[in-house]
Amino acid sequence: MLGAGVIGGGWAARFLLAGSDVQLFDPSPTAAQAVVTTLEKARRSWRRLTLAPLPAEGSLTLVDTVEAAVTGVDLVQESAPEREALKISLLAQAAEAAPPHAIIATSTSGLLPSRLADGMRGPERFIVGHPFNPVYLLPLVEIVAADRTSPEFVERAAAMYRAVAMKPLVVRREVDGFIADRLLEALWREALWLVADDVATVEEIDDAIRFGAGLRWSAMGTFLTYRLAGGDAGMRHFMAQFGPALALPWTHLMDVPVLDQALLDKLVAQSDAQAGGRSIAELERIRDDCLVAVLRGLAGEGFAAGEVVARTERELYERAGARSDGSAAADGRLRLHEVLAAPEWIDYNGHMTESRYLEVLADTTDAFLRRIGILGPYIDAGRSYYTVETHIRHLGEVHAGDRLSVTTRLLGHDEKRLHLFHEMRRAQDDAPVATGEHMLLHVDRAAGTTTPAAPEILAVLEQIAESQAELPWPEAAGSQVRGPRLRAA
Amino acid sequence: MLGAGVIGGGWAARFLLAGSDVQLFDPSPTAAQAVVTTLEKARRSWRRLTLAPLPAEGSLTLVDTVEAAVTGVDLVQESAPEREALKISLLAQAAEAAPPHAIIATSTSGLLPSRLADGMRGPERFIVGHPFNPVYLLPLVEIVAADRTSPEFVERAAAMYRAVAMKPLVVRREVDGFIADRLLEALWREALWLVADDVATVEEIDDAIRFGAGLRWSAMGTFLTYRLAGGDAGMRHFMAQFGPALALPWTHLMDVPVLDQALLDKLVAQSDAQAGGRSIAELERIRDDCLVAVLRGLAGEGFAAGEVVARTERELYERAGARSDGSAAADGRLRLHEVLAAPEWIDYNGHMTESRYLEVLADTTDAFLRRIGILGPYIDAGRSYYTVETHIRHLGEVHAGDRLSVTTRLLGHDEKRLHLFHEMRRAQDDAPVATGEHMLLHVDRAAGTTTPAAPEILAVLEQIAESQAELPWPEAAGSQVRGPRLRAA
Repeated sequence: MLGAGVIGGGWAARFLLAGSDVQLFDPSPTAAQAVVTTLEKARRSWRRLTLAPLPAEGSLTLVDTVEAAVTGVDLVQESAPEREALKISLLAQAAEAAPPHAIIATSTSGLLPSRLADGMRGPERFIVGHPFNPVYLLPLVEIVAADRTSPEFVERAAAMYRAVAMKPLVVRREVDGFIADRLLEALWREALWLVADDVATVEEIDDAIRFGAGLRWSAMGTFLTYRLAGGDAGMRHFMAQFGPALALPWTHLMDVPVLDQALLDKLVAQSDAQAGGRSIAELERIRDDCLVAVLRGLAGEGFAAGEVVARTERELYERAGARSDGSAAADGRLRLHEVLAAPEWIDYNGHMTESRYLEVLADTTDAFLRRIGILGPYIDAGRSYYTVETHIRHLGEVHAGDRLSVTTRLLGHDEKRLHLFHEMRRAQDDAPVATGEHMLLHVDRAAGTTTPAAPEILAVLEQIAESQAELPWPEAAGSQVRGPRLRAA
Repeated sequence: MLGAGVIGGGWAARFLLAGSDVQLFDPSPTAAQAVVTTLEKARRSWRRLTLAPLPAEGSLTLVDTVEAAVTGVDLVQESAPEREALKISLLAQAAEAAPPHAIIATSTSGLLPSRLADGMRGPERFIVGHPFNPVYLLPLVEIVAADRTSPEFVERAAAMYRAVAMKPLVVRREVDGFIADRLLEALWREALWLVADDVATVEEIDDAIRFGAGLRWSAMGTFLTYRLAGGDAGMRHFMAQFGPALALPWTHLMDVPVLDQALLDKLVAQSDAQAGGRSIAELERIRDDCLVAVLRGLAGEGFAAGEVVARTERELYERAGARSDGSAAADGRLRLHEVLAAPEWIDYNGHMTESRYLEVLADTTDAFLRRIGILGPYIDAGRSYYTVETHIRHLGEVHAGDRLSVTTRLLGHDEKRLHLFHEMRRAQDDAPVATGEHMLLHVDRAAGTTTPAAPEILAVLEQIAESQAELPWPEAAGSQVRGPRLRAA
């Protein structure tokens, strides 16, 4: 990593969290602290983003020279300030010292790569890898080849970025601003005109996006959105209907706004008002929490950026090895279920609503039933366990993003009955947040009666009971709800 | 409602779900079916969006004339095709027949309101109310006054839109395209250039948004985002750093792309490829599910559009509180909650999954709390009841569509404790399907401790206890889960 500003620090955090070792060079005396701060934000966000087992973090080494940074690496990622001459010289220096197989990448947001590769040794290794802030959360990275870049290195760069949970977008040919920044800049310029013309303040302009089209853009871009607006008649119909509006005077076409002192003063004053006294750190936390919530929501749908999250989780689980049902704690209690508290589980009191406690407990019961063999064929044959009684103690609050893990005791069983006791804990502090005691009956669903479980099921139950025989009886089991002025039954 | 296309149908669904009665005129023979389809999509999305009790749906009346549509209404919302002459004549006709107090609103996405009000009777009532697709989910509505519009009607329109869970944005002065569509159009024009120049396909352009800046835009607009990019030095620093890039050739400035046959053919072919054979209905479902997930995520953060969702939920609970008068059965038990078992509550055993029993019971507890005065202001002051213990007996199966009704006993209470007993029955045969026994504690949320409830709350509890004094003790109350091989505690 060359450079540890907002972008370089974000890259470092993304690679470290993905398990890569990072050597970082930045001449600024505050660079080290900045990276540590960014890494802490990235860790917090990823803990909230996924339950999947993250790999061990890579090591971060701060070095004093460009040469020390690029020695022995597979990827050089340059994130220096956006000045062409500076980047050309820095990249040339890095290319001299880097291994021949190393990809040389620049984070430039719009400079032409063929100009940046000027005089570089081994220019076939050079690409643009343009990320978006916050780099540790947003999946997009634009890859742009220079005129002498080899296709093999483009492919390797895409694979390397994909391996750190990103969505590489290979740009077909080099143009100033690539794809994303051309779009962002067009919108940004029109926004500046709206401020200059006093049609709207910066806050009103932001609201015009985030309460409307911005919500759509988290899932679908403009083209797919407009396809939907056109209905079943398709894109041709939409263009016939709305194409003519392109010629209407809906934007300033001809010019860029002049950034004179008056416009700058207005922008600064309005931006300060919009921030409402909140610090950048506070706003960053809000931004990251919102991004995590949005990404988590999209992951549930498996769509747009949610696809990247879902794919990453699959790979993390695979890499961690198959975590089988029924992994037991040292004392014999079963660890069958873990889940992140979803934002939609939160009620008006600001914490997890009570029925979601039972949902987590019931999901654990389902995991237990799968563990003892109550699976598709058994259920298809008309047999199952039904819960007939439940006793929950709510012991602690749960907030959105908390990771919950549940351990299970088999308190007792006979041919028809199953008596379970679950303990639910918050992973971050191991605090107990609930216990659930559940009585289940084995039923023949067609006959609508209770019936003995199959011998192979009872055999597994017997094994589990033996493995837990030494565990003390849970204090809360068998207790009843006791109230004020409780009369004798 | 005048017009039942994508926008008009979306308006109808939003108002109906908010409990408003709608009279709708559209000359198309397929309009009625289109509105029903849209309403079904809106219902599904709102069921997924919030746990809060939605009001009873308003009534939808399809009428044959403009005059019949606007008779007796508080708001006329015109959503005819985007042709100025058509809108002028339709709005004038509506203004003739509508009550003098009615707001006359047009959904135009960019036509100038002062031109549309040409020749209108009572032009002080006229505003633009420009929504975004899907209208039943996206909160933004731009309000633009014409030259003769009275400020009082602008304020009333904002209040009316706010009441149907929207975010009104009053545009300071009328310009073509207002705010949002100027921004969207600037981006859209640049996107068309990228396709015309073969820099990217429509899918690549959409990906450049939805995997990057689009995720941010769901929470923060461009100005706040760039403020963050500038760091603690603020907007002036950011502009000094990035302002010069505005003059770089990063966009096509000078012209709109010519929509000739070749460009149209390319757009259509690429858009078809992007859709990948998915129908518009399927894509709409994906879009709506993603929007719900994103809105729900943001609601958890209480930020951006999530603020609107959170505010709406608060209001819904308050309105429900005002409604639940605690209608009592003959014997003094309270009837506070009734609900239809939804199809998504059914599990692999073919009946209602166990956590939904607790959801219904907990909703009844919430209704009881509203009944005794635990409402918005009380909760906002940091006080509430938390459930600490629950005992459920599952007595019967529930299937999709079953109507469940719950009666409630107050078994006991003191200054801090509340002991409730709910009985849930299937309405069709009055069979008991569950009982729930619940212990709640009164808490001070800020202090994180239990605290006595306010005297006025305790007084209501005393009244209820007296009215139920003659009821026999429920057999199941105070019982414990008893299992096979239950050892002594």
